[in-house]
Amino acid sequence: MVDLLGMLAYGELVAFDRVAVDARLAPDLRRRAQLSTMAAAEIDNYRRLVARITELGADPQEAMRPFVDVIDAFHDSTKPRNWLEGLVKAYVGDGIADDFFREVAGLLEPDDRQLVLEVLHSDNEFAVAEITGAIADNPAVANRLALWARRLVGEALSQAQRVAAEHDSLTMLIVQGTGDLTKVGELIKRLMQAHADRMTTVGLNN
Amino acid sequence: MVDLLGMLAYGELVAFDRVAVDARLAPDLRRRAQLSTMAAAEIDNYRRLVARITELGADPQEAMRPFVDVIDAFHDSTKPRNWLEGLVKAYVGDGIADDFFREVAGLLEPDDRQLVLEVLHSDNEFAVAEITGAIADNPAVANRLALWARRLVGEALSQAQRVAAEHDSLTMLIVQGTGDLTKVGELIKRLMQAHADRMTTVGLNN
Repeated sequence: MVDLLGMLAYGELVAFDRVAVDARLAPDLRRRAQLSTMAAAEIDNYRRLVARITELGADPQEAMRPFVDVIDAFHDSTKPRNWLEGLVKAYVGDGIADDFFREVAGLLEPDDRQLVLEVLHSDNEFAVAEITGAIADNPAVANRLALWARRLVGEALSQAQRVAAEHDSLTMLIVQGTGDLTKVGELIKRLMQAHADRMTTVGLNN
Repeated sequence: MVDLLGMLAYGELVAFDRVAVDARLAPDLRRRAQLSTMAAAEIDNYRRLVARITELGADPQEAMRPFVDVIDAFHDSTKPRNWLEGLVKAYVGDGIADDFFREVAGLLEPDDRQLVLEVLHSDNEFAVAEITGAIADNPAVANRLALWARRLVGEALSQAQRVAAEHDSLTMLIVQGTGDLTKVGELIKRLMQAHADRMTTVGLNN
């Protein structure tokens, strides 16, 4: 459980400054402020997770440390080069992460389940509106963004495999929670299907 | 008034992502999170200022635009190279900015005065503790940081002169509010004295 919260907490801390930097790519100050506000929300979530880790008798820094390299590696390999890439990254990344943690939350005790569900990203309307608007203005961007989305998912999967290989406790939580390895396969299938649906929503299903 | 709020608002928006990036220089995750939390607070202030600009019938983006170059120039010329430089920058910059806006707040109508006073940085305890702690550990850093602080003030003054030259409305607000040019001189003297006192507080008065 501490492993899971540590991974979530470091994910939030990093999402905060990555999104804060990506906000500078915004074409105007209104959009920049909108993304900055989304980044700032991650810090509130971070604090709640750290409070819970402390409550469980663990050291938050120790709990986060095992995930620093893998989460940093994901972000280093997927730096957005423009505003739309930043938004697609937020949309794709938040979507998959939320789906994953929502599935895992089902395996937890009620208190922890509640906390994990509450720190998920509630709202992707802004990203959806920006991406679909940009594609409507210039359909040619859809191909590039679809390619970018595939790269994001590829990097996320390869880092997820690293986490699974390195963190037995997390892998066990999921295998035991779901029942067996077949169920883990089904979980991954559900995550990928939900991702494909989100791509369709914004017109990136090609 | 809109000029003043626009300057404050853009200052907050930029402070947000600059501090968010500087937080990465932290020696550990606890300190990094502490600075990230401080950065996130700027976004709340930003939103309040934008709400007030809109209430006054002005466009927040238009109100901020005249200050983009000058505030960006200040930050571009004062990028911290390490954790302590980042903290000294936050300490020195927040201190002078707060003193300035506190003085200007005195010239405003009660509602706006209240808003300006509320978006000031309430708390520099963390920066003070980190800087004094670092100097206690290694007195040699004091000289380097004192030099850095002087550079920060020099850059801030040169950008402030640019603002004064380019924005008659702001300059007039201050000249009329204080009474005459002599009073403006006294205001600058007070700001520099308060800065010197803050330097003494953290052991950077050499």
